[in-house]
Amino acid sequence: MITQQIKAAVRDIPDFPKPGIIFKDITPILKNPALCQNIVDAFAEQLAGAKIDVIASVESRGFLFGLMLAVKLGVPFVPIRKAGKLPHTVKQKVYKLEYGTATIELHVDAFKPGQRILIHDDLLATGGTVTAAAELIQELGGIVCGFTFVVGLGFLGGKERITGVSDNIVVLAEY
Amino acid sequence: MITQQIKAAVRDIPDFPKPGIIFKDITPILKNPALCQNIVDAFAEQLAGAKIDVIASVESRGFLFGLMLAVKLGVPFVPIRKAGKLPHTVKQKVYKLEYGTATIELHVDAFKPGQRILIHDDLLATGGTVTAAAELIQELGGIVCGFTFVVGLGFLGGKERITGVSDNIVVLAEY
Repeated sequence: MITQQIKAAVRDIPDFPKPGIIFKDITPILKNPALCQNIVDAFAEQLAGAKIDVIASVESRGFLFGLMLAVKLGVPFVPIRKAGKLPHTVKQKVYKLEYGTATIELHVDAFKPGQRILIHDDLLATGGTVTAAAELIQELGGIVCGFTFVVGLGFLGGKERITGVSDNIVVLAEY
Repeated sequence: MITQQIKAAVRDIPDFPKPGIIFKDITPILKNPALCQNIVDAFAEQLAGAKIDVIASVESRGFLFGLMLAVKLGVPFVPIRKAGKLPHTVKQKVYKLEYGTATIELHVDAFKPGQRILIHDDLLATGGTVTAAAELIQELGGIVCGFTFVVGLGFLGGKERITGVSDNIVVLAEY
C-alpha cells in the first residue's frame, strides 16, 4: 500500500545529475502531507519492537523525515552534517565518492556510548554516505541498530553494503 | 512557556563560525522530541486562521521543522535548495552574503501562481536568505503570506527587513 503510494508520487528525471542517470525525484512526495504522515507511520510500524535510542540523519534530505520519525518514536534526533556546519566539538569522517571525497561531522556529545542509533535517509543508492555515517557513529561508541529509507535503488547494491552493519533495514519502496 | 523551553535548550557557542560571534546552537532542541512537537504545535496555534497553501523552507535546517509544520497544517511542503540540487526545471536566485554570494533554487512547478506560501526557517539572523527565498517565490507568482522561525536574533534586524514582505511573522524565542 505505502509502496504503491510512494512509487505513484516519485518522478523520474532523466539525465540528472549527469547524462545516462535517471534520478528519482522525491519532491512530489513532500507535496502530499497525508503521504508524508503515512511514510512516518509505516516506518514506526515496521520498527515496532526494535530498541532505538536515537535517530540520526545526514543533511539535507535526511532531515525531512528523520526529525518526524524521531518525534513519532519519542527519541532524540541527531543531525550529521557536512564539514564546518556543526558548531560544537565534532568528530569528522572523510569518505570516498565516485569522484573525490566528502566529509561529514557529528557532535561528540550527540549521544552516549552504548546507545542504539537508527540511521535514516530518504534514498538508498550505493550506501556510501550512510556507511560513512555508521562508521562515524561507531567511532563515537554508538551501536548502529538499523536503517530506514523511503526509496531504495536495489540495483546499486546499497542494501548489501550496509547489511554487515545491521540487518534491520527498512526500505518502503524498492526499485 | 514555549519560549522558555526553547531558550533553556539552545546553547551558546562562542567564536563560531568566527571569533567574536556567539552562535545559537539549536541541536539540543532536536534531542527533545516533546519540545519539537511543542514547537510545531505553537506555530500552528499562532497561525490559526491564516490562509496558507504551502510551506517552503531553505535547506538544510529549515527542512527539520518545515516538513513537520506542513504535515501538521495539512499542506504541501516545498524545498528551496542550493544550486544544482533540485533535479527538475528550476528558477534561480543569487543573493549577497557578508562575503560573496549564494544561490538558491526552486522547482518552477513547486506551486501554482497565486498560492499563498509561508516560509519557515529555524533561525532568523539578518534575514538575507529568507528575503531571497521570498523574492524567488514572488518571481514564480507566489504570494508570501508569512514567516515562522524557532529562534530570532532581534539585534541583527532581520524582522525589520522582512516586515515589508509580510507582517505575519512568528518567532517563538527572540534574543
